[in-house]
Amino acid sequence: MMNHSEGRTGPNHAKVMGSFKGHALPGTFFFIMALWWSTKSILKYIFRKQKRTCPGSKALFRRAEILEGIVSVCMPPGMAGEQFIPGGPYWSLYKEGRWNQILGWHHFTMYLFFGLVGVSNILCFTINSLPVSLPKLMMSNALFVEAFIFYNHTHGREMLDIFVHQLLFLAVLLAAIVAFMEFLTRNNVLVELLRSSLILLQGTWFWQLGFVLYPLGGHPSWDLTDHENALFLTMCFCWHYLLALTIIGMNYAFITWFVKSRLKRLCPSEVGLLKNVEREQESEEEM
Amino acid sequence: MMNHSEGRTGPNHAKVMGSFKGHALPGTFFFIMALWWSTKSILKYIFRKQKRTCPGSKALFRRAEILEGIVSVCMPPGMAGEQFIPGGPYWSLYKEGRWNQILGWHHFTMYLFFGLVGVSNILCFTINSLPVSLPKLMMSNALFVEAFIFYNHTHGREMLDIFVHQLLFLAVLLAAIVAFMEFLTRNNVLVELLRSSLILLQGTWFWQLGFVLYPLGGHPSWDLTDHENALFLTMCFCWHYLLALTIIGMNYAFITWFVKSRLKRLCPSEVGLLKNVEREQESEEEM
Amino acid sequence: MMNHSEGRTGPNHAKVMGSFKGHALPGTFFFIMALWWSTKSILKYIFRKQKRTCPGSKALFRRAEILEGIVSVCMPPGMAGEQFIPGGPYWSLYKEGRWNQILGWHHFTMYLFFGLVGVSNILCFTINSLPVSLPKLMMSNALFVEAFIFYNHTHGREMLDIFVHQLLFLAVLLAAIVAFMEFLTRNNVLVELLRSSLILLQGTWFWQLGFVLYPLGGHPSWDLTDHENALFLTMCFCWHYLLALTIIGMNYAFITWFVKSRLKRLCPSEVGLLKNVEREQESEEEM
Amino acid sequence: MMNHSEGRTGPNHAKVMGSFKGHALPGTFFFIMALWWSTKSILKYIFRKQKRTCPGSKALFRRAEILEGIVSVCMPPGMAGEQFIPGGPYWSLYKEGRWNQILGWHHFTMYLFFGLVGVSNILCFTINSLPVSLPKLMMSNALFVEAFIFYNHTHGREMLDIFVHQLLFLAVLLAAIVAFMEFLTRNNVLVELLRSSLILLQGTWFWQLGFVLYPLGGHPSWDLTDHENALFLTMCFCWHYLLALTIIGMNYAFITWFVKSRLKRLCPSEVGLLKNVEREQESEEEM
Repeated sequence: MMNHSEGRTGPNHAKVMGSFKGHALPGTFFFIMALWWSTKSILKYIFRKQKRTCPGSKALFRRAEILEGIVSVCMPPGMAGEQFIPGGPYWSLYKEGRWNQILGWHHFTMYLFFGLVGVSNILCFTINSLPVSLPKLMMSNALFVEAFIFYNHTHGREMLDIFVHQLLFLAVLLAAIVAFMEFLTRNNVLVELLRSSLILLQGTWFWQLGFVLYPLGGHPSWDLTDHENALFLTMCFCWHYLLALTIIGMNYAFITWFVKSRLKRLCPSEVGLLKNVEREQESEEEM
Repeated sequence: MMNHSEGRTGPNHAKVMGSFKGHALPGTFFFIMALWWSTKSILKYIFRKQKRTCPGSKALFRRAEILEGIVSVCMPPGMAGEQFIPGGPYWSLYKEGRWNQILGWHHFTMYLFFGLVGVSNILCFTINSLPVSLPKLMMSNALFVEAFIFYNHTHGREMLDIFVHQLLFLAVLLAAIVAFMEFLTRNNVLVELLRSSLILLQGTWFWQLGFVLYPLGGHPSWDLTDHENALFLTMCFCWHYLLALTIIGMNYAFITWFVKSRLKRLCPSEVGLLKNVEREQESEEEM
Repeated sequence: MMNHSEGRTGPNHAKVMGSFKGHALPGTFFFIMALWWSTKSILKYIFRKQKRTCPGSKALFRRAEILEGIVSVCMPPGMAGEQFIPGGPYWSLYKEGRWNQILGWHHFTMYLFFGLVGVSNILCFTINSLPVSLPKLMMSNALFVEAFIFYNHTHGREMLDIFVHQLLFLAVLLAAIVAFMEFLTRNNVLVELLRSSLILLQGTWFWQLGFVLYPLGGHPSWDLTDHENALFLTMCFCWHYLLALTIIGMNYAFITWFVKSRLKRLCPSEVGLLKNVEREQESEEEM
Repeated sequence: MMNHSEGRTGPNHAKVMGSFKGHALPGTFFFIMALWWSTKSILKYIFRKQKRTCPGSKALFRRAEILEGIVSVCMPPGMAGEQFIPGGPYWSLYKEGRWNQILGWHHFTMYLFFGLVGVSNILCFTINSLPVSLPKLMMSNALFVEAFIFYNHTHGREMLDIFVHQLLFLAVLLAAIVAFMEFLTRNNVLVELLRSSLILLQGTWFWQLGFVLYPLGGHPSWDLTDHENALFLTMCFCWHYLLALTIIGMNYAFITWFVKSRLKRLCPSEVGLLKNVEREQESEEEM
């Protein structure tokens, strides 16, 4: 463990990703995207259950997908601004006989694959000849690549630094596997919400990483070699997941209430009737 | 291996979970729940096979589910009483510059997720707009979290202590995977019984853990560094599983006999006829 | 690696399982069973494809299943004769302050689970109320237990001894996973034949184990610490698998030819017609 | 790490596979095959979507499959020419008291299983009684065997040499798993293209291996013990995958354009109409 300082790519790295802000930024991105994805899944589920769509809702969904695609495509280059901040790699990969800020390039590669998800989203909802489940496959792909890179990201660091990145790896890998299941079994709302909650977990865990590795002024820094801290963070990870589940659950409750109260004004009797029939069939199936 | 005593969170821990009783309690809980779940699965299967339900059986099932939910919700706080017994953490997580009884908090976190299963059970069978397979997903979730925590639970202990916890981890992980399959493929009675038997295994293995780590007065204590003991416990784990399968099988035989004898009095000819027709179709399918 | 001799359960063990015969016996058992299972799968597939069964073939299959069950139940106790040969454990598990021949007891436990497959086979084809896919689940179970025990079986032995057991573990684990798939997706002949070929591989690999660990008189013994031997056995394992695939393929060709030539005499035109129709549909589906 | 030179099978090995050419050859083979497979999948998908096949296209596909089989069968023996080049094993497996060029024999074994895929391809499209998904199972098998051999291929080499082979192992294993999924879930074009792109990745990665381990004259050689290089190659692997996805995507665009422009001349109105109907149904399903 004596060579942990050599494992990092020099002091420059610390300025960019190796900071609280560098972890809070992707954390916030994943948090917002997970909320948006869960909202989309829940709305689709509710409309599907009532076996009718509001007039125009379909075109609305298509436009939302394209908008999501554009945001996904624009976000990564924005983040790739990391390339140009003072101390960034400035697109030079090999400098002075050694690799230049290889960990910064790792982050860039991850953003690239999330950008690809955006591209596939746009293509799939503008061009007709593409299979509709392509964006889900690309999402799973992007998560697998992210998991792969994080797995090979932490050579030679301190025990606790490696441990929190391993937990991040676990969250990303599980999200990737669930996203692949989503690709295979279409239209299962719970699988979609599970994926959203795992990405939410990833988002909040990025924040936790920031707090652990770069404690804000005033807070004492964590002892990165104390195994007690690893035991605490194990539990902390579960609490983050509990938080993610709670947020998704509250989102579900809110949207259901919102749609019901809004639709009731338009067509009160029909909706209730349809829901009961649907429910009856489902529990029939279950029994 | 010299630092195994430092790995524990001080002598206080031993008073709570680190005792025979602390392992026998959750063991008994899982044993009873597994019996109840297997009974429920078998009854549902028999009723489904006869393609009719006794009048009122459906309402009965729903009430049973809600009762199960209430028990699941109440049980964890009861167990969380561990917080308040002499030497417990009393809700303080950080004390005197170090984490306070972090392993006790681990147990508390596990109970929390099983409590969540109970909550989802109650919500799902009282509110109509929730997907009916939600409790199964939450069950799988709770088991995955339990497996995750047990995996990171035993740092710095003796070889045999780690080994028996690894076997526990294996049983919990397999139960979690099978529960997830149950969530994906609804109404396969054998998958449900497999999950029940793995949870039964977990229950009896908790007892075994108690006997190995905290031998009762009179019995000689186990040598925690002898690998021969690990070889014996490997085999012992299989025997526990055999016992679990036998118990589930006897439960199946008993319930089938009970339902048949009770229904025969009510409608003897019809039942036999229906069963044969059903059987014929199934083996048709098989051939 | 100095303690490899202590890892074994004393010299007595060598007399029983630790011999060429002790490996050849289960190898032959698995070889014969795999041939029988593949024959059964191929016959069922051919009959299913022609969408008719010879009169009486169904009763024949049922009787064959029960016979298979009886053989499976009888075989293990026969092998458990290992308990009573000179130097065997004679049912005593704990003797003179230490575990008595724990590795012999491991083998006994494996046989027990394969016996259980036989019991479930008999029960399932005599009693009507059991789900028909129960024996497949029990088969998968027995293979998982076997894999689990082999994984924990080789503590403290030589490198090559561990390596060949790891390959055995791999073959058994894959067979267990494929058997579980067979349980979930019924009536896929290729999955069934894949499982048979993996069990055939297990059978021939048992023989290879015998040759490597207990070379017959005249042959030079293997250097158990030379990694070159591990590289050779890696390749050898693939050749065994190739052999298994070839045997299953030849069995398929022989049975198809046999059924065709025998049925042609009875009803020549009908069979050919039906086969073509079936084939047409399948390739339609494929295209 | 001192014994890494003994781990290799002597200096002779370097002449055959241990060269740039020895890696470029299989790389090119996999690259071409992946392009061909993706083309086949895309064509089948387009024809299936339009719910009609050009007259004669079916016979064409069948002939293409048989041709592919013949190429697959011929290619490996061609490559097995490795046996007869100066310094090759010349079919002698054991020479002068040690294994003769065991790594060369490893390669031979891999080619053997790919040859088997070709054999099953030919058999399946000439003989009628075989299940049509047999070649897909054999393809998955061949990839699993390749992954297994690569996993046990690199004992005692340098860190970076092992690392790049591990990445190769990862690509092959993922391709094997996806090919198995393709076998289970027929006619999902995205799964087929995913498999093609993973095999394309394998092809280009073979080239990368050649460049890293046997740098061409003029280029400086890589430091095989520097972990920075491993971090770069991690990222490089993702770029290769990105390249593979791009190539497959461009192939998709080109074939769609080609088929559309060519069919438009023959039957312009019908095609467009059918496509829209199809699309409508699919997105209906999706919503």
